[in-house]
Amino acid sequence: MTNKTLLEQLNWRYATKKMDAAKSVPQEKLDTIIEAIRLSPTSSGTQPFELLVVTNPELRSEISKAASDQSPITDGSHLLVFAAWDNYTEARIDEVAKLNVEKRGDLPLIGQYYGNLKASYVPRDAEVNYAHAARQAYIALGITMVAAAEQEVDCTPMEGFDPSKVDEILGLKERGLRSVVLLPLGYRDPTGDWLLNMPKVRKSRKTMVTQID
Amino acid sequence: MTNKTLLEQLNWRYATKKMDAAKSVPQEKLDTIIEAIRLSPTSSGTQPFELLVVTNPELRSEISKAASDQSPITDGSHLLVFAAWDNYTEARIDEVAKLNVEKRGDLPLIGQYYGNLKASYVPRDAEVNYAHAARQAYIALGITMVAAAEQEVDCTPMEGFDPSKVDEILGLKERGLRSVVLLPLGYRDPTGDWLLNMPKVRKSRKTMVTQID
Repeated sequence: MTNKTLLEQLNWRYATKKMDAAKSVPQEKLDTIIEAIRLSPTSSGTQPFELLVVTNPELRSEISKAASDQSPITDGSHLLVFAAWDNYTEARIDEVAKLNVEKRGDLPLIGQYYGNLKASYVPRDAEVNYAHAARQAYIALGITMVAAAEQEVDCTPMEGFDPSKVDEILGLKERGLRSVVLLPLGYRDPTGDWLLNMPKVRKSRKTMVTQID
Repeated sequence: MTNKTLLEQLNWRYATKKMDAAKSVPQEKLDTIIEAIRLSPTSSGTQPFELLVVTNPELRSEISKAASDQSPITDGSHLLVFAAWDNYTEARIDEVAKLNVEKRGDLPLIGQYYGNLKASYVPRDAEVNYAHAARQAYIALGITMVAAAEQEVDCTPMEGFDPSKVDEILGLKERGLRSVVLLPLGYRDPTGDWLLNMPKVRKSRKTMVTQID
């Protein structure tokens, strides 16, 4: 753990292009990062995604082939795969409601709330529901990148992969999941990463932000 | 700024249901939160969303009506509206490339990279591009909730609103933007918020995480 502020952490991190294959993220840091994902807020508390933590070299090599051979997938020590629900179903939302009742007691409000949610979500097109679930995974993705930076662990967010191939490699379809985004964890290779010494590029506040008083 | 760890911050925060209308987020804290949004990573560095910071009471009251009268919109001191690009266009990606050249020098790689991006994104359906841009805003949303917690500022992520009405109230359509998510900032009302003392509900690590070694 560092004593950096969030802004210092955001300035420290970058999308690592070359990781040091000799270094491994310690279990304690990995556990903290996973706990941040578990605590990440999601719409109506559904947490509509699962996390796969892949260290297996053969699987990572296969996944790498489905992701233009991006080297952090195999040079990092852990590959995080965020896999969103392919749809909202009665059973899935019932599980969420059940967990709420376990933690908060059998309040009538809970049954009513998730009853309404089922009535609204379940009839929708599966693609609409998947898109909504995937967005929730992106909340966690943002928080994961902060969690890694706090632990001085590097990571590389990746959308550039073939999701159907990754789903097949990890057997996600059978589990009603679809891979959304990859995030290898590891340590930057300071001598091999062309991006490390490049200045960070961000739009000015003036370009991005409108204040309406 | 607190000295809390990220996990402590995530445990401290909750989706505030009742804010204290008498309290206002100080400018310095707001500036830090906005800076975290500006520094949030996005796909290919496009930062394909804008942020509206609304304090105007009339506008917030109108927006509240388009959001089932959720009280934090008007009881908070600042309403953040994340508004994603309605599409990827040549001009927008050219702006991103130009900023990269300004910060990193006129490297051939930059022109090539964003040239490929244009070839891939611009012909796609506008809805596909908007969905992609909206996901990037969700990365920032996750980081914003951490930024607020670090500043001991409360917030309430809201998807439950009529985006076309909010777009109309804020004149977003003319700017090629679509409202994605609302995030009022303010301070919890400890006596008025039923959710404050409820235990946090999260799935177990076992339920969410699969390790593949």
